Amino acid sequence: MTTTRARLRGGIDLGGTKIQAVVIDGRNAVRGSARTPTPREGGPPAVAVAMAETLRAAVASSGASPGQLAAVGIGAPGAVDAATGDVAHSGNIIGWHGSFPLGSTLAADLGAPVRIGNDVDVATEAEYRLGAGKGYRSVLGVFWGTGVGGGLILNGQRWTGRGAAAEIGHVVVVIDGLPCGSGRKGCMEAYAGRGRMEERARAALAKGHKTSLFEIMERRGKERLSSGVWQDALAEGDKIAIGLIDEAMAAIAAAVASANNLLDVDAIILGGGLGTRFGQPFADRLGREMLPHLFVSDRPPPVFVAALGDLGGAIGAALGAPVRAR
Amino acid sequence: MTTTRARLRGGIDLGGTKIQAVVIDGRNAVRGSARTPTPREGGPPAVAVAMAETLRAAVASSGASPGQLAAVGIGAPGAVDAATGDVAHSGNIIGWHGSFPLGSTLAADLGAPVRIGNDVDVATEAEYRLGAGKGYRSVLGVFWGTGVGGGLILNGQRWTGRGAAAEIGHVVVVIDGLPCGSGRKGCMEAYAGRGRMEERARAALAKGHKTSLFEIMERRGKERLSSGVWQDALAEGDKIAIGLIDEAMAAIAAAVASANNLLDVDAIILGGGLGTRFGQPFADRLGREMLPHLFVSDRPPPVFVAALGDLGGAIGAALGAPVRAR
Repeated sequence: MTTTRARLRGGIDLGGTKIQAVVIDGRNAVRGSARTPTPREGGPPAVAVAMAETLRAAVASSGASPGQLAAVGIGAPGAVDAATGDVAHSGNIIGWHGSFPLGSTLAADLGAPVRIGNDVDVATEAEYRLGAGKGYRSVLGVFWGTGVGGGLILNGQRWTGRGAAAEIGHVVVVIDGLPCGSGRKGCMEAYAGRGRMEERARAALAKGHKTSLFEIMERRGKERLSSGVWQDALAEGDKIAIGLIDEAMAAIAAAVASANNLLDVDAIILGGGLGTRFGQPFADRLGREMLPHLFVSDRPPPVFVAALGDLGGAIGAALGAPVRAR
Repeated sequence: MTTTRARLRGGIDLGGTKIQAVVIDGRNAVRGSARTPTPREGGPPAVAVAMAETLRAAVASSGASPGQLAAVGIGAPGAVDAATGDVAHSGNIIGWHGSFPLGSTLAADLGAPVRIGNDVDVATEAEYRLGAGKGYRSVLGVFWGTGVGGGLILNGQRWTGRGAAAEIGHVVVVIDGLPCGSGRKGCMEAYAGRGRMEERARAALAKGHKTSLFEIMERRGKERLSSGVWQDALAEGDKIAIGLIDEAMAAIAAAVASANNLLDVDAIILGGGLGTRFGQPFADRLGREMLPHLFVSDRPPPVFVAALGDLGGAIGAALGAPVRAR
C-alpha cells in the first residue's frame, strides 16, 4: 500500500489564463484534477500560492491526502532554469518580469521535491509517452494557441539544445515578412499566432472590412478572439476569418515542413488551443499543405491532433516529477 | 608494425566533378591523397572503377601498399542506403539514374570492407571531430556549393532522422517564392545554390543587364560560374553578382537562423565550394545576418568556416570506414 501511495505524482501546468493540476499514479493514469484561473494580481508569489492550492484541490479530488504526493512536476512558460527551479520572463503571466524561485517556493509549500520544465516541452513529452505520439521515437509537437510553441523528442529524448530549442513559431517563413517581435520579421507565429491573428482582424475591421468575429466574441462573452470564436466564424463562412486561418495554415505548413526537412521525424503532433479545437481535420490539412514543401514527399510524417487535450501539459509535468527510485 | 599498418583507412568523396581520396592513419592524420575528375561517360560502373583507382593512387602517395588498407569509407551524394551500400539518384553524377551497388562493387575491387554515408553528413562529421567544430557537442554544417547541403551532429551523434534529415537547403524562406525543384518553391537553395544563381545571372544578362560574370568565366577557362568566378566578380564590384550574393546570404541566414531556433546548436560550420572560397569573412557575415532572426539573440552560436577544406569529405568518409576493433 505504501509503495502505491507514495508513487502519486502531481503535475501543474501554468498558463496565462489558467492553472491546471493533475495527480497521476504509478501507471501514469490520472487520479484527480483541478483547474483555477491564473491570478491577475500579486505577481509570482500569488501565482505560486494559487498553483499549490490548485494541486491540493486535485489531490483532494483523487481521494488521496497531500502527504501522499511523492513529487511534483511543473510546466511553465518563459525562461525556465531546470537546475535551480527559477522561472523568468513569463511574459504571458501578469506581473512576472524578473526571475522568481518558483521551484523552491512550491517545494516548501507542498513538502515534496519539485522539478520544472518548459510548458511546451513537457506537453510534447506527454503526447510522446502517453498520447498521439505513442510508439514513435522522434516527434515534433506544434502547439497552436496565442503563440505557436514547439517541443521536440529525438530518439526518445527531449531535445532542448542549449536550453531554447524547438521554437517552431520562430522559423522564418517569409524573409522581411510581417513583424513578429523584438525586431524579428516573417516568423511563422507572425501569421499563425492567435494573438497576431486577432490584431490583423481588428485592423481589417478598422479598415471597413466586414467580419462577424467580434460579434461572435461578444455573443460568447469573451474579451478575446478565443479558439471557439474562430471556429464559429469559420462555420459561418466569415471571409476575414477564413482568409486569416488560410494564411496561418500556410505558415504553419511551411515551418513544419522546413523542420521536417531538417529533422525527418517519425510524427508531427498538432496541439494547443486552436489545434485541439480544430481537431484531426486540421491536422490532415496541415499534412496536405506540408507536402509541396517536403524534400522527401513520398513518405511524409503522419500528423496527429494531440490526444491528451487540456490535460496534456499537466500530465507531462507530472511525468517529469523527480520521484526517487527505491 | 602490423597493427599500425593495418589501421590505415581509405576515404573517398564522390562529387559531381571530382573524386577525392585520402588515406588516414590510426591518429586520423592524412598520410596520402589523390584527386581525379568524375567520369562523364560509362555511368555508375565507370565511376566505381575511377573511385578505386583514385584511392589506389592515394595509397601509393602515402608510401603504403593497397593491402595495408584496413577499411574504406565513402561519402556519396544522392540516396545512400548505408545498410546495403547501394546508392540511387545521384543526380549530380552523369548517367546515375537507378540504384547501383557501389559498396559491394568497391569492396570487391579493393579487397576491404566498405561503408557508405551521405557526402555532406560525413563532411560534417569530419569538421565536428577534427576541424572547425572540434570541442562542440552539437553542430550544423552548411555546405554552400552548386546546391546547399547540410549535416547535423546532435550531442555527439550524426542525426539522419529516417534517412533524409539535415536538408538545410530545403528550408522554406519565402512562401511561394522562387522555384526550387520537384514543385517546391521558396527553398533557401532556390536563392543560394550556385546552380540557381548562375541561371539567374544568365537571365539577367539576357534581359540586357550588364555583368562581367561570364567574361570572367571565359577568362578563367571555366564552363560554369565557379566559386572563383563569383569571387572575382565581387572583387570587381559587379552589381549583378553583388545583388545575387546578397540575396543568397539573406536566404542562408534566414534558413540557418530558423534551424538554430529549432535546434539551438553549439556552433555552425560554413563549408562547400563557395563557403570555403569566401572564408571566415562570409562566416562572420552569416553570423551577423542571422541575428535579427534568432529567438535568443544574446548568445548566438559561433559561425566558423570549414577547416578541412577540399579534403573534409574524404576525411569524413575515412572516419566512417568499418574498422573492426581487435
